[in-house]
Amino acid sequence: MKKYTSVDDIQDLKEFLELAKKIKADPLANKKLGKDKTIGLLFFNPSLRTRLSTQKAAQNLGMECMVMNLNTEGWTLEFGDGEVMNGAASEHIKEAAQVVSQYCDIIAIRSFPTLKDKEKDEAETVISSFVKYASVPVISLEGATEHPLQALADALTIEEYKTKERPKVVLSWAPHPKALPQSVPNSFVKMMKKMDVDFIITHPKGYELNPSITEGVTIEHNQETAFQGADFIYAKNWSSYNDYGQITNQDPQWTIGKKQMELTNNAKFMHCLPVRRNVIVTDEILDSEASLVIPEANNRTFSAQAVITKLLTQ
Amino acid sequence: MKKYTSVDDIQDLKEFLELAKKIKADPLANKKLGKDKTIGLLFFNPSLRTRLSTQKAAQNLGMECMVMNLNTEGWTLEFGDGEVMNGAASEHIKEAAQVVSQYCDIIAIRSFPTLKDKEKDEAETVISSFVKYASVPVISLEGATEHPLQALADALTIEEYKTKERPKVVLSWAPHPKALPQSVPNSFVKMMKKMDVDFIITHPKGYELNPSITEGVTIEHNQETAFQGADFIYAKNWSSYNDYGQITNQDPQWTIGKKQMELTNNAKFMHCLPVRRNVIVTDEILDSEASLVIPEANNRTFSAQAVITKLLTQ
Amino acid sequence: MKKYTSVDDIQDLKEFLELAKKIKADPLANKKLGKDKTIGLLFFNPSLRTRLSTQKAAQNLGMECMVMNLNTEGWTLEFGDGEVMNGAASEHIKEAAQVVSQYCDIIAIRSFPTLKDKEKDEAETVISSFVKYASVPVISLEGATEHPLQALADALTIEEYKTKERPKVVLSWAPHPKALPQSVPNSFVKMMKKMDVDFIITHPKGYELNPSITEGVTIEHNQETAFQGADFIYAKNWSSYNDYGQITNQDPQWTIGKKQMELTNNAKFMHCLPVRRNVIVTDEILDSEASLVIPEANNRTFSAQAVITKLLTQ
Repeated sequence: MKKYTSVDDIQDLKEFLELAKKIKADPLANKKLGKDKTIGLLFFNPSLRTRLSTQKAAQNLGMECMVMNLNTEGWTLEFGDGEVMNGAASEHIKEAAQVVSQYCDIIAIRSFPTLKDKEKDEAETVISSFVKYASVPVISLEGATEHPLQALADALTIEEYKTKERPKVVLSWAPHPKALPQSVPNSFVKMMKKMDVDFIITHPKGYELNPSITEGVTIEHNQETAFQGADFIYAKNWSSYNDYGQITNQDPQWTIGKKQMELTNNAKFMHCLPVRRNVIVTDEILDSEASLVIPEANNRTFSAQAVITKLLTQ
Repeated sequence: MKKYTSVDDIQDLKEFLELAKKIKADPLANKKLGKDKTIGLLFFNPSLRTRLSTQKAAQNLGMECMVMNLNTEGWTLEFGDGEVMNGAASEHIKEAAQVVSQYCDIIAIRSFPTLKDKEKDEAETVISSFVKYASVPVISLEGATEHPLQALADALTIEEYKTKERPKVVLSWAPHPKALPQSVPNSFVKMMKKMDVDFIITHPKGYELNPSITEGVTIEHNQETAFQGADFIYAKNWSSYNDYGQITNQDPQWTIGKKQMELTNNAKFMHCLPVRRNVIVTDEILDSEASLVIPEANNRTFSAQAVITKLLTQ
Repeated sequence: MKKYTSVDDIQDLKEFLELAKKIKADPLANKKLGKDKTIGLLFFNPSLRTRLSTQKAAQNLGMECMVMNLNTEGWTLEFGDGEVMNGAASEHIKEAAQVVSQYCDIIAIRSFPTLKDKEKDEAETVISSFVKYASVPVISLEGATEHPLQALADALTIEEYKTKERPKVVLSWAPHPKALPQSVPNSFVKMMKKMDVDFIITHPKGYELNPSITEGVTIEHNQETAFQGADFIYAKNWSSYNDYGQITNQDPQWTIGKKQMELTNNAKFMHCLPVRRNVIVTDEILDSEASLVIPEANNRTFSAQAVITKLLTQ
């Protein structure tokens, strides 16, 4: 593996999950692997979980960590070829990626979508440009269309908590006051397609995800029908893909509560966090034993550590 | 000790100060104690001394340090129970505290008061919520009503520089152009009440601190009377507690200078820093041999290191 | 060597470059030198290369690194003597420098010029005040009038790539949409005067640098004449020194392209980065084998490491 910017980069998920489980059982076992190596974490957007868990993962491997919050420092990059750079951008991605490669053994980047320019977002301009020009492996800390580290933690969590060989997993849209990216659900869908699960997506009409990603997955617009017999409910809000970046529905009936969870097979509740209580999910569910959100967040460390391990031993 | 968010958390001050002195004599003696452990420093407000000294303390113990400046990253938390989170807050403290606990062995937090909402400030909403929901020990890097790490450094400094068994210590209000918190004087008062000192507070009428904190302490509104025979002058500005958060007096007569210091028993001058020269204290005093502000700042490292040591060996 | 805030601080450049080359050949050879020591990186202005390369250099020496972005945290310092500090500044440099010296073994600072107040900029108020009051060595991460770490990396790069004993080096002004400091060209000029090179500066009239720095150096206002037979072209924009901080000319004829490079002796192209493509230099040159900008950026690590090594072994 030479990069991890998409769930598509995983060649053998089983092996990957075995590695993550092994790491979780003894996180410091491989502390010499990253000795004298450095990971650069570049944030074009804020981050809490991703930053701390990736930093922790790197430390567990004995790596040094250099964190740059580029969002607050107004580092404007040019991505176009042949541009006359007499505007706001002071540096071209060609130099930026090559320069950071001089100081880091792995570059990890967070760069959110515009949610306005679909074409630009789908091109994953920032991350794919780093992949193109960097001379070291690149990790996505959430890009414009994917959040592959989250999806790996989610897969690990489902592996750990499933009580049958082929559990039913439901990805359910839930309301939210702000327009959010599709990166988490996109990566989750891709991940579920790689797992031995009975997977179904439920959302109000108008919230269809990119059809090339959901191809082959059952989409059910009736949330109650979707939840029947589910073993895992994965809640997430996202903005419209067709009416790009728009909020087309905020129906509070979709907030996940006792009423919905009672339809399931005593399902576990998952969410990538941060989660808006009583908007995405009720207190009752989030504070119940059904909720896996904290162990799921904990798994962020081990999934990141598995990715870094793979990249350092490729 | 399971947390250090108030001077009240100190059970045996003598033992604590002995530990701090031992650490200062050989700061790296215990470098294996924090091996493979991580402290998370979360700042909702700016910090220089506290951040660098706590980071240094952690490093002296061999810990990894993860710093988050949450103030510049607009991480808005919800603290209320049962709230429908459809406003600005994107994460509830319940999740935030539990999640950070997954990645850190100790969580240290700075969160200043509003100086507008007395009830909210006195509830120490941010820090007490972290204490409530985190699964690891919590340290205050200055809260709404206390700055216990500063007070411990102050106690250590007085211990080191006192020339008699029971020195006279005067906490003196001094003018300042901005409304400042009462956290430093509050913790200092609590600390002095635990020490074998002759302690007195002096301030203009209207600057009474929280009476439940100053209970039993002599308050003298005449600065000259208070300074008579003092061994330590601890200067600090604070805003009014009764007329909450207001500046009710900026009397330049209270600026500490030669005139006042001459009334003392060749007293040492202390201040937590940052200090406004020629407003809080004159250049003449601050640049004189009487000033302890730099060794006092140096003691921040060892007091933080004592606290972390206690929390890691509890 | 007790500080490195100017190229003037270098006493024996040959020895320095030998050290840097030795470090580059085996960057981790001296990993115990910085054990249990801390470098504080204080940024009053944004930084990418300088921050990452200095951090990397410190890590290569086994040092701990504490980074403070003072620019985003609004840390306003007072520098004047005897000031009554009732304005914006909350701390005097006297305390700030002494306090940071308590926690760090080396202090490194970035502080850009105002480009408005020539006298203040030439006084290097921030960095020279840290030098005056700090009790530990100070490194400039780019000040108001010099960027000595960059110049050292440039010298190392010329040493590595020169193919004759006394190469011809041309510093060429190039256009830029914003008014930029003179610190990079100032330090480069000072460095070239220390090296065995045939050095010439070319710029449009009105862009004369500080004459006390360029004293004795040939200045040629015709770029084509200057480039004849050159072995190294060092491109850089700067604002006017005489008409202080102003852009007096943006002549696109000065953009360095094939036309100019063909006049040279197959010269190498250098720039400190970030570089604006097709404004400072054409894509054609920057993407050609003549360009040294990436190895030059890489040398930032080794020049910083040489400086830190010198300061720790003084």
